[in-house]
Amino acid sequence: MIRYGASISLDGFTAGPDQSKENPLGVGGMQLHDWLRRLAVWRENHGEEGGVETASTEVLKAAGANLGAYVMGRNMFGGGPGPWGDDPWNGWWGEDPPFHLPVFVVTHHARPPLECEGGTTFTFVTDGPEAAVALAREAAGDRDVLISGGASVGRQCLAAGLVDELQLDLVPVLLGVGERLFDGLPTSIELEQTAVVEGAGVVHLTYRVSSTR
Amino acid sequence: MIRYGASISLDGFTAGPDQSKENPLGVGGMQLHDWLRRLAVWRENHGEEGGVETASTEVLKAAGANLGAYVMGRNMFGGGPGPWGDDPWNGWWGEDPPFHLPVFVVTHHARPPLECEGGTTFTFVTDGPEAAVALAREAAGDRDVLISGGASVGRQCLAAGLVDELQLDLVPVLLGVGERLFDGLPTSIELEQTAVVEGAGVVHLTYRVSSTR
Repeated sequence: MIRYGASISLDGFTAGPDQSKENPLGVGGMQLHDWLRRLAVWRENHGEEGGVETASTEVLKAAGANLGAYVMGRNMFGGGPGPWGDDPWNGWWGEDPPFHLPVFVVTHHARPPLECEGGTTFTFVTDGPEAAVALAREAAGDRDVLISGGASVGRQCLAAGLVDELQLDLVPVLLGVGERLFDGLPTSIELEQTAVVEGAGVVHLTYRVSSTR
Repeated sequence: MIRYGASISLDGFTAGPDQSKENPLGVGGMQLHDWLRRLAVWRENHGEEGGVETASTEVLKAAGANLGAYVMGRNMFGGGPGPWGDDPWNGWWGEDPPFHLPVFVVTHHARPPLECEGGTTFTFVTDGPEAAVALAREAAGDRDVLISGGASVGRQCLAAGLVDELQLDLVPVLLGVGERLFDGLPTSIELEQTAVVEGAGVVHLTYRVSSTR
């Protein structure tokens, strides 16, 4: 199964404007992860102590179960737009990124794969989201592929009919500007609401996706 | 308390494009009310038989409780844009509209108040949403005012800091085009998630609204 997962503002943005090293999720975008950074399970996975257990804990654990590979966009991997240069950006996450699986990064700029500690490998795919999903599906075998963030990649995969399930963490904030996940998508996309979990400052929404095309 | 309530698509629209007599909620917009039209409590209030009871029933009853007046936009009242003419449109709802309270309609075109059966009176307000809310507040006394539909009126009232509570019925459908409730709003608007109820094909979301302006 191919899943798309992202935190999304009530006005439909998965990141604010002007993503940068200082603002990986764009200006104001970190508010989208307030609910996440409070969780003990997230903090442990990111090498931080403390945190709480909420209804979101189980949701996060379930989302991480049965995964075989990730797909993400260039903005989520980071390092700004354009060629990688001589001292390329190696992601936001340090030497041991929290994925522990193959990750396929959709980018316009080729570079060799990047192998990190803990089983995370980043493979850079230059022929589009569909190609990245195909590679991830192969790498994942019987397990799921999670398209993890990036409004642009998510939108392209939805439009191409590649997404079986949508996992949105709806956050009560208005970002006003940024990139919208749902913009210019074919209305032939059909959604079935399959799960709703109320967290603290977040609602976890799951939809089965099909297309009548 | 001033509340804003509307059914909203997952991509943020409270109506589809090209609202008309045939498509009061615009093309595709009736999907926003699928969850509502199934409910026995709604059908009874609209003179129709049958229907079911779901988790949405209580939400609908609670939303209708303690109300003193409504505010709505011209599109929600209907009859197309422009002057009212000699044989003016009297609303979608027939002789006994389901409001049974004073309703203040925001419009650019003056006309005398319209008194209907069952206690519904439509007053047409030509000096903007703030004026309509002020009149509704006065008419409602100790009771709440519900700004009931109309992305444009809702957006203007939110921007003006007039809304205390947001009641959104989030429907798993993508309309693609139409008018977005959340568009160009000041990011100084703060939302606190206060209730989440899972219905059948809908999620009922309640937010307390404040502004840091």
